[in-house]
Amino acid sequence: MQPTLSMREESKTIHALATPSLLLDRARLERNILRLAEHSRNLGVVLRPHMKTAKSIDVARQIFPGEPGPITVSTIAEAEYFAGHGFRDMTYAVGLSPASATRAMELCRRTGVDLKLLLDTVEQADALADVRALTGVTPSVFLELDCDDHRGGLKPDDPKLVEVADRVVAAGGKVAGVLAHAGESYGLSTPDSLVRAAQNERFATVRAAEVLRAHGHACPIVSLGSTPTAHFAENLEGVTEVRAGVYMFFDLVQHGVGVCAIDDIAISVLATVIGAKPEKGWVLVDAGWMALSRDRGTANQQLDQGYGVVCDETGRVFEDLIVCQASQEHGILAIRSGSGKTMPELPIGSRIRILPNHACAMAAQHDFYSVVNGESRKIDARWERIRGW
Amino acid sequence: MQPTLSMREESKTIHALATPSLLLDRARLERNILRLAEHSRNLGVVLRPHMKTAKSIDVARQIFPGEPGPITVSTIAEAEYFAGHGFRDMTYAVGLSPASATRAMELCRRTGVDLKLLLDTVEQADALADVRALTGVTPSVFLELDCDDHRGGLKPDDPKLVEVADRVVAAGGKVAGVLAHAGESYGLSTPDSLVRAAQNERFATVRAAEVLRAHGHACPIVSLGSTPTAHFAENLEGVTEVRAGVYMFFDLVQHGVGVCAIDDIAISVLATVIGAKPEKGWVLVDAGWMALSRDRGTANQQLDQGYGVVCDETGRVFEDLIVCQASQEHGILAIRSGSGKTMPELPIGSRIRILPNHACAMAAQHDFYSVVNGESRKIDARWERIRGW
Repeated sequence: MQPTLSMREESKTIHALATPSLLLDRARLERNILRLAEHSRNLGVVLRPHMKTAKSIDVARQIFPGEPGPITVSTIAEAEYFAGHGFRDMTYAVGLSPASATRAMELCRRTGVDLKLLLDTVEQADALADVRALTGVTPSVFLELDCDDHRGGLKPDDPKLVEVADRVVAAGGKVAGVLAHAGESYGLSTPDSLVRAAQNERFATVRAAEVLRAHGHACPIVSLGSTPTAHFAENLEGVTEVRAGVYMFFDLVQHGVGVCAIDDIAISVLATVIGAKPEKGWVLVDAGWMALSRDRGTANQQLDQGYGVVCDETGRVFEDLIVCQASQEHGILAIRSGSGKTMPELPIGSRIRILPNHACAMAAQHDFYSVVNGESRKIDARWERIRGW
Repeated sequence: MQPTLSMREESKTIHALATPSLLLDRARLERNILRLAEHSRNLGVVLRPHMKTAKSIDVARQIFPGEPGPITVSTIAEAEYFAGHGFRDMTYAVGLSPASATRAMELCRRTGVDLKLLLDTVEQADALADVRALTGVTPSVFLELDCDDHRGGLKPDDPKLVEVADRVVAAGGKVAGVLAHAGESYGLSTPDSLVRAAQNERFATVRAAEVLRAHGHACPIVSLGSTPTAHFAENLEGVTEVRAGVYMFFDLVQHGVGVCAIDDIAISVLATVIGAKPEKGWVLVDAGWMALSRDRGTANQQLDQGYGVVCDETGRVFEDLIVCQASQEHGILAIRSGSGKTMPELPIGSRIRILPNHACAMAAQHDFYSVVNGESRKIDARWERIRGW
């Protein structure tokens, strides 16, 4: 027995982490990445993963172990970060403003990346003339489509679609293609409805591309995606690429939708027990909404998971044990009401893991991932995340 | 006209900020700080502000323009940060674990700060012996009280209170005093009920201190507080200090409770218009839950403010205009249903400010404050925030 060595080994385990701390299970991450990569390949489309969930070059390298591939980003800060790590083909999938488009094209000029933008109005198209004049770069843009009344975008048969495309060209920009996001698929929960949502997303994008081509716009990229529809798509004829983000980590919302098993969820927050109220059936831990996020995405699903499902320190789920309340740095664990289960033994100082309602939101509360593997307590690596805009 | 000078001036205004961006109004901050400082002075108690809301040395310096004073923190990382900036008298107001207590006492040994801890169980008290042996520091602890069934803590007449205090002493620790937090006051909305909640919080802490003193514990500090009860307390006889955090910034939840006016809210997120769906009455902006947080604290109040109240670029409220939906980087603005108001003119590229449901949660999504003053667009300063654990 060498105490020094043993302490050094101990320092590389989750026991040495201050809590709350964000864990990422490498085997689950790899499995999730492989699953959608294979499905996309089988459907004959390019996968353009959305880096808004992981915001980490290390996670991106798991997806692209060789050359950097095509990615989607949700902020210009992400684009700048991934450009700095050699990524060259990116889509900023948030509608442009004159200021963000200028900043994006300055990044292109400085680094040579191809950062495609998104728009759906004549005003945005007209603004490209100034952006081009200011930066000397020809903006390449997607027309945003609305396939399910979720948020922004134009319907495929809206006459404005062709008008906006024409104005992009008139302003000196390039039409890269059309882009849809079936955001309403997050509210579904049956395989049939998910297959239909994926079909609908395809119909809308392919139709819009046809309309634009009939009016002389080549529309080389036909892009769609959301984690649920990406996994339930059975036929993507006419589509060239699919986008998804949360699929890398998965979460309880996606489990509720029916896209993944609980065992696929790759991130969790490690927390320490700091108290109990046996008369109320409560155990208190040092992870509140600051560590878990305020996301309550399962609140309207069939099974409300509170602020997250509780597992033991090695990741095994305690059946029906959830975080029922959260304040800034406190979480309250309780057995789901109506369950016949009893509270497990969780003395002061013992540690648990909490699975996320929404992986993007939980991960955003942390600056790094401690990478673990299955039930091992060993930490493989520390992967940084970025944030800001 | 000197164009160079004018560009330099422009770079110091909110026009030069990338959006979304967190703004802090200095005049409102000062007014809020002054209000509770005066009220505490009138009640004859020390104010120990909770730095969990601002997490910024620059904000702390507004409260303590001379010597650093007593503060409350929600993480050991905050304690380390404020210790590095000269603060010496701190309370870590989250129940201790053996690991957090050890880390806290190591900070005390290293820097000479007095960082008081919190506990409410015999197990935590017993653990102090090891903490003392490991660090050579005598832990000074508060007994956590439960005055309103909100979270952790012991009732003043629970026999465990004296038992835990005795065990603290037996483990070589010191009893600093008793500490209560009237967390349920956030759910109130009338002056009478707030006054009663403040009275109840005082009764519980003073009673607990009496019980402990009758058993030989000096209990020098009698500490209570929450932003609503701190402002509505009319008599704090027997209490030595009051704690509050969100009062520095205030927010829509506190407005709904009745503690502040909308005009007192000192932080907001600056955002840019990136689209519209006139047929749905929507305007889209580039601030989603990543910038606003997922907090929906007004959802159960009389007036549900969605994800926040919308103001023009200078901070003037657009009546009945709220953020009705939020995804990661998108916010959807709409007129509150049932209102007779119409959507203001908000063309692509125009800017708005969004007031927070919960200031602690909104601020936590950002790394710095851009300090502004009233309706001026000039940025006075950039104040950093810390995060993590």
